[in-house]
Formats: sequence, C-alpha cells, structure tokens
Amino acid sequence: MPEKSSYALDGIDRLIHEKARLSILSSLAAHPAGLVFTDLKDLCRLTDGNLSRHLTILQEARLISIHKSFQNNRPQTIARLSPLGQKRFTEYLTELEQIVSSALKSKRHPAPTPVRPKPA
Amino acid sequence: MPEKSSYALDGIDRLIHEKARLSILSSLAAHPAGLVFTDLKDLCRLTDGNLSRHLTILQEARLISIHKSFQNNRPQTIARLSPLGQKRFTEYLTELEQIVSSALKSKRHPAPTPVRPKPA
Repeated sequence: MPEKSSYALDGIDRLIHEKARLSILSSLAAHPAGLVFTDLKDLCRLTDGNLSRHLTILQEARLISIHKSFQNNRPQTIARLSPLGQKRFTEYLTELEQIVSSALKSKRHPAPTPVRPKPA
Repeated sequence: MPEKSSYALDGIDRLIHEKARLSILSSLAAHPAGLVFTDLKDLCRLTDGNLSRHLTILQEARLISIHKSFQNNRPQTIARLSPLGQKRFTEYLTELEQIVSSALKSKRHPAPTPVRPKPA
C-alpha cells in the first residue's frame, strides 16, 4: 500500500452526502427558523414524493424535526434542522472542505507513483 | 418561492458525487501516472467487487482509462484519470468548494424566514 490512506473518505457520512439530502440540509441550515414543505420543495427542486421520502429518512436519523400545524385552515408541514443535524452537517462540511483542499493541493503536487515490490 | 435557488446543487454530478467513485477519482487525481488495482483498492478501502464495479462505471463514462499489462508474468490492471476525467473532477471540486463556502457563510448570516402570501 503506497501510503496511509486519506482517500477512503471515512469521515463522509453517506446519509448526508446523498445529493437530495445534502440539498435539503443546506436549505434548512440557511433557514434556522425552518421551512414550509412547499418552499423546501421549490428550493431543492424535488418532487413531493422525493422530498417526503428524504425528509422521513432525515427525521428517522434525528437530523431534522417535522412540525405539523394549520395556517388559514390549511395543513402546513415545517421542517427544521435539529441540534444533532446542525452538528453533523457542520462536521460533514469540515470533511468536505478537507477533501477539496487536499484534492486541489494534490493537483499541484502529485504523489509519486507507488513502487510495487517485485515478487520473490 | 423564497429566493432563487442555489440549494438544488445542479452542478453536482451524481456520477462523481457517489462516495466510492469520489474516493477513486481523488486517488487517481493525486497519482497522475495511474494506480495498480490492488493499490487503488487499499487506498480507497474497497472490496475487489466494489472497486471493479465502480471502475467499469467510470470507464464507461470515459472519466478513466484502464490498461492491462503483465508484470513478472502476472496480469496487472492500471487505472488512470482521463483528460475528460480531470476536467470533470476539477469542475466538481469547484462546485463543492462553493457549496461549502456558502453553507458556512449562511451559518453566520442565516437567510430570513420566507413570508408566505395569505390565500385570497
């Protein structure tokens, strides 16, 4: 093995990394008071079904909370990032930042080609 | 809709975003001369089957090239990032950089809660 691996991306949480969920979490992180379902759907450009499915996954992981209420007699669903969600999303962003910076760095200073030992 | 959406992450290419493939492409970007299958497997901490599967996907998308040769009478598979792969990976990193920087910025300066018009 050429060197100790930082390429395995162990810190990248698949739950957050999935594109639609990353989009939802980015939107919610920018709107700490929460977002109404239809606004979130527009922001993330997801279908009703897709948004619902990913909100359920995020809620089950306790990264977001879902509040149901009524406004002008219409049911309203509001999603908010939970404290755990904020923590995990920030950790994810930090990992992502490191991946980008080391990838850009290795573009400028490529690693040497690994030398494979000759079989005996 | 509260504001024009940058949350939909349109620039994020799912082909590259998938965690195992991101790991493979990061490894190859850091080793421009290419990597032998077993080294790549160790670096990315993937199983043989998983690595093969993702290499095929990346090769079909022309992001990498696969070279088969013999070393000491043993078959050797070497993967290399193609020029297209380099271009697309750099574009992906630029997108990722923007997501991280705007997410960290919006943590400091949250967007206002959208005001929904009352139904007539």
